[in-house]
Amino acid sequence: MSEPTRLLRHVVLFKFKDETTPEQIAEIENAFRALPGQIDAIHSFEWGTNVSIEGIARGYTHCFFLSFQSEEDRAIYLPHPAHKAFGALLGPHKEQVLVLDYWSQS
Amino acid sequence: MSEPTRLLRHVVLFKFKDETTPEQIAEIENAFRALPGQIDAIHSFEWGTNVSIEGIARGYTHCFFLSFQSEEDRAIYLPHPAHKAFGALLGPHKEQVLVLDYWSQS
Repeated sequence: MSEPTRLLRHVVLFKFKDETTPEQIAEIENAFRALPGQIDAIHSFEWGTNVSIEGIARGYTHCFFLSFQSEEDRAIYLPHPAHKAFGALLGPHKEQVLVLDYWSQS
Repeated sequence: MSEPTRLLRHVVLFKFKDETTPEQIAEIENAFRALPGQIDAIHSFEWGTNVSIEGIARGYTHCFFLSFQSEEDRAIYLPHPAHKAFGALLGPHKEQVLVLDYWSQS
């Protein structure tokens, strides 16, 4: 295994605007899913929509969960043109975004 | 590999009260870390504290990232006495909690 012991996790939550359509949301989901193919610095990627039964998701409906192997890789990702293009696509539709990064530990 | 294709991810974010001390936060961290040893339904567990450089963590400082293999396992976890005891320990110190679950997909 070449997997490092710890990874830099990048948790991204989205709440879309009320007027954003399901088709627009699907376009944004697909654009985010395309980023790992465009940015090698992304070590792993997964996502999903909220299915919590606890009712404290604070309005967020989507979670995208990325991992980086280093702060340097995150520093490549954040200003990457493909990421910036995604941000421009998302912009008009985002009601609120939350980003929290952590180094994974057990 | 017996790993299923998809896992039910359980993302838990904490913001503590201003008056909660570092020692009390450490006690809560350690109590959460003990849960996987007490509740078999937890398939995997990791956690960390916020190191995002984007400034949109919305005040949350801690992320605990659990996985379940099924909704049934989540249904064992949520009302489990060990989880309830943890909730009682956390209660006086929580400023805000966010929970979002999703089925992992690529």
